[in-house]
Parts: sequence; C-alpha cells; structure tokens
Amino acid sequence: MASPNPIEYSDASIEIREIYDEIKLTRGIQDVSNFWKYLANDPVTLRRTWTSLKEIMGPGALDSLTKELIYIAVSATNNCAYCIRSHSASASSKGMTDAMFGELMAVVGMANETNKLVHGYQVPLDSP
Amino acid sequence: MASPNPIEYSDASIEIREIYDEIKLTRGIQDVSNFWKYLANDPVTLRRTWTSLKEIMGPGALDSLTKELIYIAVSATNNCAYCIRSHSASASSKGMTDAMFGELMAVVGMANETNKLVHGYQVPLDSP
Amino acid sequence: MASPNPIEYSDASIEIREIYDEIKLTRGIQDVSNFWKYLANDPVTLRRTWTSLKEIMGPGALDSLTKELIYIAVSATNNCAYCIRSHSASASSKGMTDAMFGELMAVVGMANETNKLVHGYQVPLDSP
Amino acid sequence: MASPNPIEYSDASIEIREIYDEIKLTRGIQDVSNFWKYLANDPVTLRRTWTSLKEIMGPGALDSLTKELIYIAVSATNNCAYCIRSHSASASSKGMTDAMFGELMAVVGMANETNKLVHGYQVPLDSP
Amino acid sequence: MASPNPIEYSDASIEIREIYDEIKLTRGIQDVSNFWKYLANDPVTLRRTWTSLKEIMGPGALDSLTKELIYIAVSATNNCAYCIRSHSASASSKGMTDAMFGELMAVVGMANETNKLVHGYQVPLDSP
Amino acid sequence: MASPNPIEYSDASIEIREIYDEIKLTRGIQDVSNFWKYLANDPVTLRRTWTSLKEIMGPGALDSLTKELIYIAVSATNNCAYCIRSHSASASSKGMTDAMFGELMAVVGMANETNKLVHGYQVPLDSP
Repeated sequence: MASPNPIEYSDASIEIREIYDEIKLTRGIQDVSNFWKYLANDPVTLRRTWTSLKEIMGPGALDSLTKELIYIAVSATNNCAYCIRSHSASASSKGMTDAMFGELMAVVGMANETNKLVHGYQVPLDSP
Repeated sequence: MASPNPIEYSDASIEIREIYDEIKLTRGIQDVSNFWKYLANDPVTLRRTWTSLKEIMGPGALDSLTKELIYIAVSATNNCAYCIRSHSASASSKGMTDAMFGELMAVVGMANETNKLVHGYQVPLDSP
Repeated sequence: MASPNPIEYSDASIEIREIYDEIKLTRGIQDVSNFWKYLANDPVTLRRTWTSLKEIMGPGALDSLTKELIYIAVSATNNCAYCIRSHSASASSKGMTDAMFGELMAVVGMANETNKLVHGYQVPLDSP
Repeated sequence: MASPNPIEYSDASIEIREIYDEIKLTRGIQDVSNFWKYLANDPVTLRRTWTSLKEIMGPGALDSLTKELIYIAVSATNNCAYCIRSHSASASSKGMTDAMFGELMAVVGMANETNKLVHGYQVPLDSP
Repeated sequence: MASPNPIEYSDASIEIREIYDEIKLTRGIQDVSNFWKYLANDPVTLRRTWTSLKEIMGPGALDSLTKELIYIAVSATNNCAYCIRSHSASASSKGMTDAMFGELMAVVGMANETNKLVHGYQVPLDSP
Repeated sequence: MASPNPIEYSDASIEIREIYDEIKLTRGIQDVSNFWKYLANDPVTLRRTWTSLKEIMGPGALDSLTKELIYIAVSATNNCAYCIRSHSASASSKGMTDAMFGELMAVVGMANETNKLVHGYQVPLDSP
C-alpha cells in the first residue's frame, strides 16, 4: 500500500458507483477524474468529500467562478499541481479569461510576499 | 536589531514621508498602517512594495473586491493574522458581507483539505 | 552543482560505506534508498540524520507504526511525495492496512481544513 | 467584519443551538469551545464541520488517541496554536502521556527536517 | 487555459521582447528561461517581476551569493523544484561549492525542524 | 498536558542540568532560553537538538552569520516568531546590520512570491 491505485467504475462497488454516477450526472462528464478514483479507496471519505464540495462550490453569496479563483489561489500557495490544473479547467469553463488568470496569479504572488514580510518584520496588529 | 521598530511620520526621512503621503492620499486615511511603518526600515522595499501593490490591487480583469478575497484566502492559508485582518477590513469596505466571508472561508478550508488529500493519495494528473 | 548526484556504494568513501552498511544491516535491505545516496554528498548530515532517525523512530512510548503514521501525516501536509511513498512502504511493512491509510488521510485532510478555518476566523484560545 | 465575533448560546438561532446541544451532549461539556462559536457565523460550515469531525475522529481502523496524535502533528506543522492546544487536551484525556507527546514532537520535527532535505536535494523516487 | 503555455521570442509582442532582450543582455544568456516565458502571459507581471528581481538580487549590504543561498533556503522550504534548480545554478556560477550547498541544506533542515518544535511546544518569547 | 511547562534549572534532573551547563558555557549566557526549557520535557530531544545545532551552526564552508541569515529566512517563511526573534538576536551579535536585515527580508519576500508564481503557472524545468 505504498502507493494507492485508482478504482475504475468497472471494478467499483455499488456504493462507489452510485457516487460516481452522481458526479458524472451533476458535472455532465463521461468519467470521473483521478481525484475521485483515488478517494474511492476510502468510500467514507469519497462520499463526504463529494457532499461537502457540492455544498461549498455552488453559487451562493459568492458566484461559482469566484469560488474557483479562490480554490486556485489556495492550491498555488500549497503547490498542488493537480488541483491548480483541475480548478483552472473548471474556472475556464465558467468564464475565467487569460487576463483574469494573470491577475489572480499576481495577487497570489504578492500576498505570499507580503505575508512573509509581515512575519519577518513581526508587524503587530494596528490599534483599532 | 532582534526586533525592528516602526518608523513614525515625525521621525521619517523625506523619501519615506513622500511614500507615506502618497499612501494616505490614495487611501484617504490619516495615518499609514503598521505594515508600512515597519517596511520603512528598508526604504527600497517600502517603495517597491507600495508601487507593486498599487499596480496589482486596482480593478482590472478582476474587480477590487475579488482581489481582496483572494488575498484573504492566501493569508488564511499562510496563517498571517495581520494580513487577514487588514485585508478583511479592505474587503468589507468594498462590499464583502458576512455571508461572503463565510463562503470564502468554506472554500479556503475545503481547498486546503483536498490539496492534502491529493498529496497523500499521490493523485496523478488526468490525461487530457 | 545545480543538481546533486546520488553516491553509489562503489563510489563511496570508507566513512560513507560504514553508514550505508549500518543502514542495510539494521533494515535488512540490499541497497540504501535514494535519500541516503543524496545525503551522502554531505557525510556530516548523512551521519547525523541516520543517527537521529534511529533514535527517534524506534518503539518507545509510541510504537513504531504510530510513528510512521505521524511521519506520513507531516509529509502529506508538506507535499513530499518521496517521503509519503517511502514511509507508506515502512508503515505497510509494520502493519498499516488500506483502511488505516484511508482514515489517516481523512484526519490529515480534516486537520488541514480546520487549521485554516481557525486562522481565517482568528479563533482565540479558550479560557482554561 | 474585519474580525468575526463568537456567537454565544444565548444569542444563537435555533439551528445553531441544536448543533451546540449535540456537541455538548456528545462531548459531555458545559459549553462549546471558541472554534464552534466562531464557525457559527456560517451555520452551513458549522454543521458540515461538526458532522465531518464526528465521522472522522471516532474509533475505526485507527483508535481515537492515534487520530488525535495525527491531528496534533498536522497542527504543529501548520503552526495552529489553538488546534495544538485543543487537540493536546483531547489527546491527554484519551491517554496521551508526557512521554508520548515528547516522542510525537520528535517525529514531527524530524519529518519536517527530512521533508525539506528531500526537496533541497531533489531526491527522485526509488525504483520499485 | 487549464495550463498556460510559454511564449517564445518569435511569438512575443514588442513589449515582451524588450524585456526578454534586457534579461538576456543583463545575464549574458542566449535565451530566457521558462520562468520568464510563462510570466510573459501577463506582461505587467513579467515587467514588475524582472524589475523587482534586478533591484533585490544585486549586491548591496549582502553579496550576491548570500542572496542566492537565501533564495534556495526559501525554495527548499516551499518545495519549489524549479526554483531550487535555477537558483542553485546561479549560486554555483557565483561560487557556491558542494560543501556550501551541504551546509545550506543542513541549516534549512534544522531550521524547519526547530520551527515546528517551537510551534508544537508552544514556546513563548523570552523576556528581553 | 495540553500545554507543556518550561523546566527551570532548579527543578531539572542532573542529565538536563549538564546540557543546560554546556549551553550556558558555550554561549556565555546566564540562563538558557525558553526553547531549551521546553525541550527539556523530553531529555532525548533536548540532547539531540543541542548536539545537532552545535554541529550545524558553527563556521564551516559557510560562516556563522550567513547560517543565521538562512535560519531567519526559513523561520520567516514558516512564520515562527520565536525563531525569527532569537536568530535575529544571534545574527545581530554576529554582525548583521539593519541594512542586511532589510535585504534579507526583501529576498525572502521575493522568493516566496516567485515560488508561488512558478507553482501557479506550472513552469516546467528548463532543458539543461
């Protein structure tokens, strides 16, 4: 188990297939992505993660595209290549332009820089 | 120098005062925040950071509020309390509601969770 | 030196060979892993790291498997693919099942999520 | 909204009170901790986080104490003081001794050190 | 736009070519590295990043080699393989020996270890 | 044990006192800092950490001050306030000027920014 394997639909239990089916239907895709196929090694986590993502990522006080941009910002900060790529694809399908991606990256870079300057200089909270 | 000190306007060089003045004028505030007073220990970094922030944070392909939300997302991921607080104040002044902050945090939490699940399960890139 | 090279046993100094021999003997393996072959570029770090790992990872108040799980938790949080893989192999050899790995990942994901929620909401310490 | 406020039971909606009541009952405590009082600013996140934590942290393939140790390991790596403290309290109540905490910290420290050595030396995966 | 593409000189706008030319001239190289070709997707960030790097990385109170070592230290901590490799090449060209790289890594590893021990043990500031 | 306590010399075992004495003698100080008093909760970690730090931080291929600067760079990246403060004090005592600290922070900030830009743009390694 030094390296988990993806679970394909054809090899999946009924419980897993039901979740795969719901993901495919919701997203209008032919096959679920690797993320779900790996999580399926733990059906409890597969179900909880899918349920949580559905609850969180839909439009609400923030629109769906803004949520994808935030996801990319966190993923770039954490160096998660898979996540950057999959959420960039989602964001593009929801209207992210190249110019928006460029500005997103500029903010992410700047925030990471100033976060560390604040730590290094030990800047105290402003009095209210 | 184990702990830098803030540089107040009254003690600042002309070069620093010019930048402070520009920050105050641009933002319509009475005094610059601690971030700038600490960076002023290195006037080159003070000037570059202010110039860069002005260039990055204004409205463009992304609006100003969205940029503030992204800034908060990075700062929460990096645990920069000062940055979370100051950019939450900016975001609020630009229209962030409590509901928007709540959804922002939900996305940030979820992105951090799934980023680490991807790492732990070593999920490979999807074939295009 | 933009990219260090591994040092194979046949090319190693006597000092390095002695450590390689001890690692192989202790772990019952034919050849040391890449981690040691790269650290061997700095024999002082090679020796100290091996000595420290031996001291830390053996059974004590915590058993060896629990220590491997903790190692994986940190490595997934830090996105160290090599470390996740090598310590998952160690953990498996010490009894980690697929179900245990799944629950480990679930805790790691959740801890990363709530850590960032705590930062974002600036939750203060509970009074004792 | 630059700084969210905790929501006390007396000021909470019925929806929030129900979750608070369940947390108090499940854990046998008089009042919920600050973490829940801050999350209550977003009742959807409050409910999802509580439901997820209940599902994840109970005994399964891993016992409850081991899960708390893993939680502390992640929280120390992420520098979440609140989380370290609250999960150390939980771990202690489940049997963590001072010696166990000491060994936990030793593993966490060592894993963080070797993670970065692997990155710095760019150690490639071992051939299987 | 799930995956940005590099912009080669032959396909670049005049604005981008001017920056490429300046980078090539300053560094005495035939072609700019991938970092610049990707940043060129956002010419504003390309220009600002180049201008900032020039201002920061030249010799000042700290010599150029020391600055490259610091860059590598941060990049190893953040697990940026590209950055480690490119700044190790720069450092080597400025005189970094294998022994220096080894000691750099030793300090980086130790600092990451003790940083996390400090967090885990919640060590308070020493009284002055 | 939700919060470890420092171990003062007067309450320390002989084993711990010997290490405290060596630290005080080596560094020419009256009392050891909090870091050591907290690590003393685990005498094995106390001894190993002191031995390792002595081996790593002394002058070698890199001088002592450069090593302190690297330590600060990592600590600012990891947001370890205690570590930034204590190693800034050490660096100052070894000759770090305010101008050097300013340039150190500038490099740390820039490295953190470009590290994340590289992740976000998914910049591939340059061909050799």
